[in-house]
Amino acid sequence: MNETIKTQLNHKTVRKFEERSVEKETLKTLVDVFNHSASSTGMQQCSIIRVTNKDIKREIMKVSTQKYLEDCPELFIFIVDVYRNYKIAVEKGFEGDSYRDMDRFFQGFTDAVIGAQNMMVALESLGLGGVYFGSILNDYDRICEVLKLPELTFPVFGVGFGYPAQTPQLKPKMPMDLKLFENEYKIFPSYLEAIKKYDDEMTEYYDTRDEGRRSDSFSDQVVSKFKQVSQKRRDVLASIEKQGFNIK
Amino acid sequence: MNETIKTQLNHKTVRKFEERSVEKETLKTLVDVFNHSASSTGMQQCSIIRVTNKDIKREIMKVSTQKYLEDCPELFIFIVDVYRNYKIAVEKGFEGDSYRDMDRFFQGFTDAVIGAQNMMVALESLGLGGVYFGSILNDYDRICEVLKLPELTFPVFGVGFGYPAQTPQLKPKMPMDLKLFENEYKIFPSYLEAIKKYDDEMTEYYDTRDEGRRSDSFSDQVVSKFKQVSQKRRDVLASIEKQGFNIK
Repeated sequence: MNETIKTQLNHKTVRKFEERSVEKETLKTLVDVFNHSASSTGMQQCSIIRVTNKDIKREIMKVSTQKYLEDCPELFIFIVDVYRNYKIAVEKGFEGDSYRDMDRFFQGFTDAVIGAQNMMVALESLGLGGVYFGSILNDYDRICEVLKLPELTFPVFGVGFGYPAQTPQLKPKMPMDLKLFENEYKIFPSYLEAIKKYDDEMTEYYDTRDEGRRSDSFSDQVVSKFKQVSQKRRDVLASIEKQGFNIK
Repeated sequence: MNETIKTQLNHKTVRKFEERSVEKETLKTLVDVFNHSASSTGMQQCSIIRVTNKDIKREIMKVSTQKYLEDCPELFIFIVDVYRNYKIAVEKGFEGDSYRDMDRFFQGFTDAVIGAQNMMVALESLGLGGVYFGSILNDYDRICEVLKLPELTFPVFGVGFGYPAQTPQLKPKMPMDLKLFENEYKIFPSYLEAIKKYDDEMTEYYDTRDEGRRSDSFSDQVVSKFKQVSQKRRDVLASIEKQGFNIK
């Protein structure tokens, strides 16, 4: 096993960081890795907003409600960005409006996630740690407003990172025989049966982990997540439409 | 610079592979890396269909229209998978329908892309090469049918990989000052002006690369991509709805 894969198999979300900042040179490297990522048809339809201003960070934290977001030494917000190419096309005299298609949106979304995960691997390989903030999506419109996102752009998630000040336990994952199929999707007669061992493992994980408060099984968590309904998140397509995409 | 980052900065899409197959042990490692990836709220809402059947591969190639898809030693189709958790929740007695929300869909989509890119880095670190197939999305419904995807699942893209039989040139990328902003989105007065140097670089790249046929600039390509409109791709939300998600 090489170092890259060793790092990857050891991936843990880090939520507590040393106060020291990430070196300029390191940031340059990480951004470079982001920029060398694969991109849908080479169109590079994503961008990053690096949040350094404390007031803006606070506004984003309020949406996220995760207090520790404010304490991340670095906070990058990854965005779908079809705006740039739209402007390029218009300057070239293009007259259609296909840049508003959801197809383009998904290309940009995919680009952003590929670039972010590439960067996550790079930063972990350097001894840094990071956390994905899906919670910044609790209020899409507010994030667009705070970051002054123009039409044809859209927030994907945030990534906080820095030097880790904690060593979290490795979180158990559902076994791959439930996730990897050959040639066609495989349906199990009972999922509770199929995940039984994993369910127990997760209960134990929550029981024993340092700062654990929960002792849910995985299946309990699935139910509790499905019970949490956020109207704003549910209405994500309305927010996408507000940003100028054609959801028809 | 460590080996991980060296590999990442050297990322190239590989489209031609040696005939030898990928070792079982290596596949296990790659799938393991996929499974150790970050996942939205820990819900692990994605899966992989590994396509080994030649007839199924051919059907997917027909959608993609990229002939070399058939010659990839390995072909993984990554999918959004909320079906598994929906079944778990129902077996637990959950009675809502929030698992149909687009919010869940995006969580699963993000999970799938994170897992796939994590795997891409791992395979490249082992001397393998890979290619993302966004082109399998030319006909979403047909892919769902061919892979027997149940409701609440959806194709994200394919990844072909194996031992490289070509050494592509490194493709120039648009400079990061057009993609990385601080605290708020930055709008440029003229994008053609801002990408001028990059536009020339891309023209030269296409002129000089081994199998190059095009000599477009980047801005020419943006226009030509926006001119290519596929009605089926455009209607992605209708296909998502057919798979049981609530697009409202």
